[in-house]
Amino acid sequence: MKPTPTFPPDRTPLLAFGAHPDDIEFGCGGVVAGETQGGRAAHFVICSRGEAATHGTPAQRTAEAKRAAKLLGATVEFVDLGGDAHIEASIARTLKLAAIIRRVRPGFVLAPSVVENQHPDHIALGRMVRDAARLARYGGVKELKRLPLHAIGQLLFYAVTSEAEPAPLAKVLIDVSAPEVLAAWTAAMAAHASQTQARRYIELQLTRARLHGLRCGVGHAIALFPNDPLHFDSLEQLGGAARRF
Amino acid sequence: MKPTPTFPPDRTPLLAFGAHPDDIEFGCGGVVAGETQGGRAAHFVICSRGEAATHGTPAQRTAEAKRAAKLLGATVEFVDLGGDAHIEASIARTLKLAAIIRRVRPGFVLAPSVVENQHPDHIALGRMVRDAARLARYGGVKELKRLPLHAIGQLLFYAVTSEAEPAPLAKVLIDVSAPEVLAAWTAAMAAHASQTQARRYIELQLTRARLHGLRCGVGHAIALFPNDPLHFDSLEQLGGAARRF
Amino acid sequence: MKPTPTFPPDRTPLLAFGAHPDDIEFGCGGVVAGETQGGRAAHFVICSRGEAATHGTPAQRTAEAKRAAKLLGATVEFVDLGGDAHIEASIARTLKLAAIIRRVRPGFVLAPSVVENQHPDHIALGRMVRDAARLARYGGVKELKRLPLHAIGQLLFYAVTSEAEPAPLAKVLIDVSAPEVLAAWTAAMAAHASQTQARRYIELQLTRARLHGLRCGVGHAIALFPNDPLHFDSLEQLGGAARRF
Amino acid sequence: MKPTPTFPPDRTPLLAFGAHPDDIEFGCGGVVAGETQGGRAAHFVICSRGEAATHGTPAQRTAEAKRAAKLLGATVEFVDLGGDAHIEASIARTLKLAAIIRRVRPGFVLAPSVVENQHPDHIALGRMVRDAARLARYGGVKELKRLPLHAIGQLLFYAVTSEAEPAPLAKVLIDVSAPEVLAAWTAAMAAHASQTQARRYIELQLTRARLHGLRCGVGHAIALFPNDPLHFDSLEQLGGAARRF
Amino acid sequence: MKPTPTFPPDRTPLLAFGAHPDDIEFGCGGVVAGETQGGRAAHFVICSRGEAATHGTPAQRTAEAKRAAKLLGATVEFVDLGGDAHIEASIARTLKLAAIIRRVRPGFVLAPSVVENQHPDHIALGRMVRDAARLARYGGVKELKRLPLHAIGQLLFYAVTSEAEPAPLAKVLIDVSAPEVLAAWTAAMAAHASQTQARRYIELQLTRARLHGLRCGVGHAIALFPNDPLHFDSLEQLGGAARRF
Amino acid sequence: MKPTPTFPPDRTPLLAFGAHPDDIEFGCGGVVAGETQGGRAAHFVICSRGEAATHGTPAQRTAEAKRAAKLLGATVEFVDLGGDAHIEASIARTLKLAAIIRRVRPGFVLAPSVVENQHPDHIALGRMVRDAARLARYGGVKELKRLPLHAIGQLLFYAVTSEAEPAPLAKVLIDVSAPEVLAAWTAAMAAHASQTQARRYIELQLTRARLHGLRCGVGHAIALFPNDPLHFDSLEQLGGAARRF
Repeated sequence: MKPTPTFPPDRTPLLAFGAHPDDIEFGCGGVVAGETQGGRAAHFVICSRGEAATHGTPAQRTAEAKRAAKLLGATVEFVDLGGDAHIEASIARTLKLAAIIRRVRPGFVLAPSVVENQHPDHIALGRMVRDAARLARYGGVKELKRLPLHAIGQLLFYAVTSEAEPAPLAKVLIDVSAPEVLAAWTAAMAAHASQTQARRYIELQLTRARLHGLRCGVGHAIALFPNDPLHFDSLEQLGGAARRF
Repeated sequence: MKPTPTFPPDRTPLLAFGAHPDDIEFGCGGVVAGETQGGRAAHFVICSRGEAATHGTPAQRTAEAKRAAKLLGATVEFVDLGGDAHIEASIARTLKLAAIIRRVRPGFVLAPSVVENQHPDHIALGRMVRDAARLARYGGVKELKRLPLHAIGQLLFYAVTSEAEPAPLAKVLIDVSAPEVLAAWTAAMAAHASQTQARRYIELQLTRARLHGLRCGVGHAIALFPNDPLHFDSLEQLGGAARRF
Repeated sequence: MKPTPTFPPDRTPLLAFGAHPDDIEFGCGGVVAGETQGGRAAHFVICSRGEAATHGTPAQRTAEAKRAAKLLGATVEFVDLGGDAHIEASIARTLKLAAIIRRVRPGFVLAPSVVENQHPDHIALGRMVRDAARLARYGGVKELKRLPLHAIGQLLFYAVTSEAEPAPLAKVLIDVSAPEVLAAWTAAMAAHASQTQARRYIELQLTRARLHGLRCGVGHAIALFPNDPLHFDSLEQLGGAARRF
Repeated sequence: MKPTPTFPPDRTPLLAFGAHPDDIEFGCGGVVAGETQGGRAAHFVICSRGEAATHGTPAQRTAEAKRAAKLLGATVEFVDLGGDAHIEASIARTLKLAAIIRRVRPGFVLAPSVVENQHPDHIALGRMVRDAARLARYGGVKELKRLPLHAIGQLLFYAVTSEAEPAPLAKVLIDVSAPEVLAAWTAAMAAHASQTQARRYIELQLTRARLHGLRCGVGHAIALFPNDPLHFDSLEQLGGAARRF
Repeated sequence: MKPTPTFPPDRTPLLAFGAHPDDIEFGCGGVVAGETQGGRAAHFVICSRGEAATHGTPAQRTAEAKRAAKLLGATVEFVDLGGDAHIEASIARTLKLAAIIRRVRPGFVLAPSVVENQHPDHIALGRMVRDAARLARYGGVKELKRLPLHAIGQLLFYAVTSEAEPAPLAKVLIDVSAPEVLAAWTAAMAAHASQTQARRYIELQLTRARLHGLRCGVGHAIALFPNDPLHFDSLEQLGGAARRF
Repeated sequence: MKPTPTFPPDRTPLLAFGAHPDDIEFGCGGVVAGETQGGRAAHFVICSRGEAATHGTPAQRTAEAKRAAKLLGATVEFVDLGGDAHIEASIARTLKLAAIIRRVRPGFVLAPSVVENQHPDHIALGRMVRDAARLARYGGVKELKRLPLHAIGQLLFYAVTSEAEPAPLAKVLIDVSAPEVLAAWTAAMAAHASQTQARRYIELQLTRARLHGLRCGVGHAIALFPNDPLHFDSLEQLGGAARRF
C-alpha cells in the first residue's frame, strides 16, 4: 500500500492503448474524436502490427493505423509486447506501459476490457494497463525511477465487441452524435481497409452505437466501463439517465 | 411502451421519499444538505408516522421529521400508504406517488433501495417510486389525467444500512465533506432523538460515510445507486474516480 | 410438489402473452413469424387495450393488434387483468392465465421477461405466466378442474427493450433473417401506427436484431431467455455457437 | 429502523415453516432429525393441506404430515394462508406468522428459499417468514402487541429442489450422516406416501444430500442458506471446509 | 479482429482435452460414449501423465488412459505442457494446442472449465484451449502457417467436480441414460483403477449425473457449459426444458 | 484428481501470507491477535520488503514488520517471490509456498483476496497460496517430496481494502472487540510508521472494522472470506447472525 499524489483530470491528455492497429478505432474511436475536437490532446499506443491477421501486411496495418489516428486528431506510437497473438501479461511489460504513462501524464486512460472470453491479446493488455496505472503512482519501482510519479485521473475500459462488455461494471454512455464526430470516427474505421473488406466491422460498431444512442435519446453513443466508482460534488454533475424506453 | 417528453434536469427540485420519519435523514441526509445549501429546492414525502416502532410516539416522530427536514432546508409532507410496517406495493398506491411526482415536477428523485433483505416497507416503497416515475410519463393513465405529464431527470436509490446497498448496480459517491453540510446532516439525524437513544444510528451513518470518503480522498461521502446508466457529452463531465488505496 | 405428465413439444401451438397491444410484436414478432411460416399454429393473449398510453385510443390499439397478429399468422384474444398500467400479480389472475394454458395446450410459451427495472405491467405479467405454467400441471387446483392438466414444453422470456434482457439467464438466439420472416415482422410492427409515430420502436427492434445477427453471422436474430436449462440427446442438436468476432 | 433485544440462540426451539405438508421433510428433514435427536425442541408450521395436489386428499396429507413430524420428533400446527396454490404474500399474513414467532420464541427459523423460479407458494412463504422475523422485533406493531417482542437467532433458508438453491448466498452444509438421523429423515419422507408414489422425491433428496456429503467427506449433508453473514468469536468455531476433491 | 471461415459442425470429429489421464472420463465420459456410439469420431489430448498424483505411476496412468479411451471409442495422444501440477498458461503452449485443433479439425471441442477454485492445471488448460480455438482461425500466426485455418463449431466446458461448474454460464444437459452409454462410461472410469481405489470418484460422477437426470426426467445426464450463446433456426431445435420438479 | 488425508483443524498453527510488510497487519491483524491471545501459534510469511514503496527503505520496512509480528504474537519469515511490484504467479513460486505449508502444517491459512482490481502483487500471491494449499496435498509432486503431505483445515481470504472484498463469496465476521485484541492490532499497524505517515491506513482499517462491528452488535469485527462452504455437525455451531439493523 503506497500513497498517491492527487491530480486534476481536467485538460490533461487522453492516452489510449490498443492491442492491434484497429482496436482503438473500433472500440472507442468516436469518444476520441469528440475529445480531440473539443480541444484535448490524444495519444495512441499500439502494441502490435497486426502481423497474425488473415488480411493485411504489417506495413499496411501500420500505415492504416497512422492514417486513422490522424483522422481522429491523435498522435501514435508503436510498442512491442511480443507481437500480435503473442501478448502475454508480465511485470516487465507492465512496467514498460507504466513508463509510457509517466511520460505522457494522461488524465484519462482508455484500455481494452478484461472480459476473459475475447481475443487473448485484449485481456492481457487490459490487465497490464490497469496494473501499470497503479504502479505508475509508486515511488520505489526501480525501472521507473527516471520518470516522475504520475497518478492518472481515471481508467476507462472500452469493448471491441458486444461480447467484451464487462457486465458487472457500471457503464457510462458518451454521446458521439455530433456530425463531425461521427464522420471522423467512421473515416478512421474505414482507414483500416485491409480489415473492413472481410468483415462488417464498421456496421457492427455503428449498430452498437446506434442502439446505445436510442437508449439515451441521442443519435449515437459509446459505452465505457469505469474501473472505479465515480465521485461527484453534487447531483448536478451526474449527467442524464440513459433511458428513453 | 409510451413516449416521454424530455426534461432538463438542472435547477428542478429534488424529491425524496422515505418509508419512516427518519429514513431520508439516515440514508442520504448529507446529499440533501449539499443540494439545498447549493440552492436547489428539496421536498420530502414521508410515508408513515413510525407508529410500529418500539420507541417514540407518532406525534413525536412527526415533530422530529419536521424539525429534521427544516435543518436540511427541505419542505415535507406526509402520505398514508397503510401505516408503518403495513406498506404493501399496489398500483393504487403507486399512482398516488406518481401524482406527487407530477405535482412536484422534480429533476432528481431519491428513494430507498429495492434490495430484498431489509425492512419490508423500504423495498415496497422503493419499487413503487420506481414504477411511479415511469407511470408519471404516460398520457393515458386516468387517475393522473388532471396533472400534466412529467419525466424525471434521474432516479437514485439510497441505502439506510450497508446491507441495503444494491451490489450489482453502479455506485456513485457524492462528497458531503463541507463542514456546514456535515453539520446540517448530523443535526438532522440527531433531531430523531426517539430513535437514536436506542441504537447507534448516527455513528453507523457517519462511519459508512467516512469509509466512502476515505475511498475517494475526501472527508465524508454518501453512496447513491442510479437506476439507469449515466450518459455524458464528454469525458470531462465524468468526475473523479473513487480510489485512493 | 406435484407430478407432471410428460408432453412432446413438437407440433403443439405456440402461445404468446403480451401486456400491451404491441409488446409481442416488438419483443419477439420475428420469432413468431418464423414459426407460423414453418407451419406451427400461434395464439396471442393480450392483457390490456393500451388505454394508459399517450397515443392511440383503446379501439385503435385493438384494431392495430388484430391486424398485426394477422400479419404474423396468429390468432388473438384479449383478457382483462385490471387494465393498462394496472396489472398487478395475484393468484386469481394467475389462475386465469393457467386456464388459458390448459385450453390452448401449447408446446412453447412466450412471455415478457421478469427483469424489475421496466414497465411494471411487463414484470407482473411475466411472473404470472411463469407461475401459471406451473399451476397448469397440478391436479387439485379447484378453479382449473374443468380443464385437463397440461405441462408446457418450454417457457421462453422475450425482452421488449435491451434493458429488459435478463443478464444472468442463458440466452439463445433465433435466426429471423429469411426475407419473408423479416418482412412479416416489420409489417406487424408498423401495424401499430399509433405508437411508432412517436418513438423509433421499429428502428430499436431492428437494430437489436441486427446486432444479434452480426454476432452469429446471419442477417437478423432475436434473443430469447429460457426459464430452465435446455437438455438434448446429443451434441448434434446444440445448434451453432453465436460468435463471429 | 427499530431496536432489537439480543437473544442467546443456544437451547431455544427450532421453528420450521412449510408451504405444503411435505416441504419441510423433503427440504431439511435431516437437519431437524439431527437437532431433535440432540435434544432441541422443534415445531412445524404447515401453511396448507396440499389441497391443490394431483395425488392425495387434504385429510390424507394432514395425516401424513402429522406422522412425519412425529418421526422427526417435532410438534406441528397448521395455519391457513389462503390454501395450496393460493398463498400470496401480504402484510396481514406476515403478521400472522410474526405472532407465531413471538409465541414459539425460536432460536433458529427454517423457511423455504426465496428463489423466484419455483412453486409460487414457496417464495411467498419464504418472503413472509423473512419479514415476519423482522417485524417480530418491533415494539409498536398493534396486531402483535399482546405478545412480547422476540428476536430470532438466525433465519436459514432450505431448498426443496436443487433449482431452489439461492446461488449468491453463502451456503453451509450440515452433516446428517448419523444412521439414526438418516433413518428418521427417510422414514419421515416415506410417510408422505401419497406424494412419493408419483415422483422420485426421496431419491432426489438423498441424491442431493449424498452429493453434498461427498463434497465434505461425510455420508450425507444438507445445504442451508443463512439470510445474514455468520459471526464468530474465533476461527476455531468456523467448522470445517467442505472440499474433498 | 480477424475473419473466420464458416464450418458446418455436423459429422466432424469431437476433440476433448484433459489435464490429467482421468479428467475427460470423470468430467464428460458419458457424453463421449454417446457420441461415439452414435457414429462420431472422438480424439483425446491428454496433457500430463499424472506424475504428481499420490497413487499410480506415470506408466500405469498412461495405460489406464489408453484403455479408458478405447472403452469410449476414442483415439488418444499425449502432449507435454510442463507436466502434472506444472501446467502454466503461455502463448507457446496455446499455439501447440491450436496446431492440434488445425490438425484434427473438430466440430465440438471439450475442455475443463475455467472456474478459478479448482486444480490449477485444469484452469490453465481450459483457458489455453479457449484461446487456441480462437487463434486457430487467424491466418497470420507464423507458428501455425503450415496447417490450414480451422474454425471449430463449438467450445463446451466440462466440470470434473461440482465445484468447477461455472455458475454464470448457460448450462445444457446431455442425456447419457442409454444402458450401453452408461456402461461404457462406468467402465472407462473404472479403468483408472489407481485413482478410484483412494476416493469415491465414480460414485461422485454418477451421483452428479443422476441428480441432473432427475431434473430433466431421464436416467442420467451430464452438464456442459457452452462458451458462447447457442443459436437456432427455429424453436423446434431447442430441445426440452430440464425441469421435472 | 488426487486423494487428501483428513486433518483435525483444532490447535494447529495459523499461517498468514502477506505480499508486503504491512498487508497482514492491515488486512487481518485483529484476527491474528485474537487467535494468539487465545493460545494458537501464528506464523507470518512476507513476500517482499516493500522496496517499491514511495516511503520507507527495505531495511526500515523489515524492521517494522518484525516488530508488528511480535506485537501480534507471531513468528515471521521473509520469502523472495521477485520483489515488491514484481510478484508474478508461477508454478515454481507456488511450489515454494506449498513447501512452506508442508513445513508449518497449519490448520487455518490466511491470504490476500483474489479480487482483480487491486495491487497486482496481492492477487498473484492470493492465487498462488490457494493453489499451493491444493498442491501440498498431492503425493507425487517431485519438488515437495522431501516433506510429508499436508492438507490444511481452511483457507480464508482477507481484504487489505474495502475494494478487495470478494463480493460473491460468503463472508464471515470475526469479533475483534476485546480491548487487548484491539490494542495489539492497533499497535501492530502503528509499527508500520513509514506507511502510516502518508495515508490514513489505520483509520481506514478501524473504520471498516467498526462498520462490521455495528452490523453484528459488537465493538469491532473483521470480515474473512472462506474459499469453500463451511460445514457443521449441528446448527448450534453456526454462531450468530450478523444483523442488528
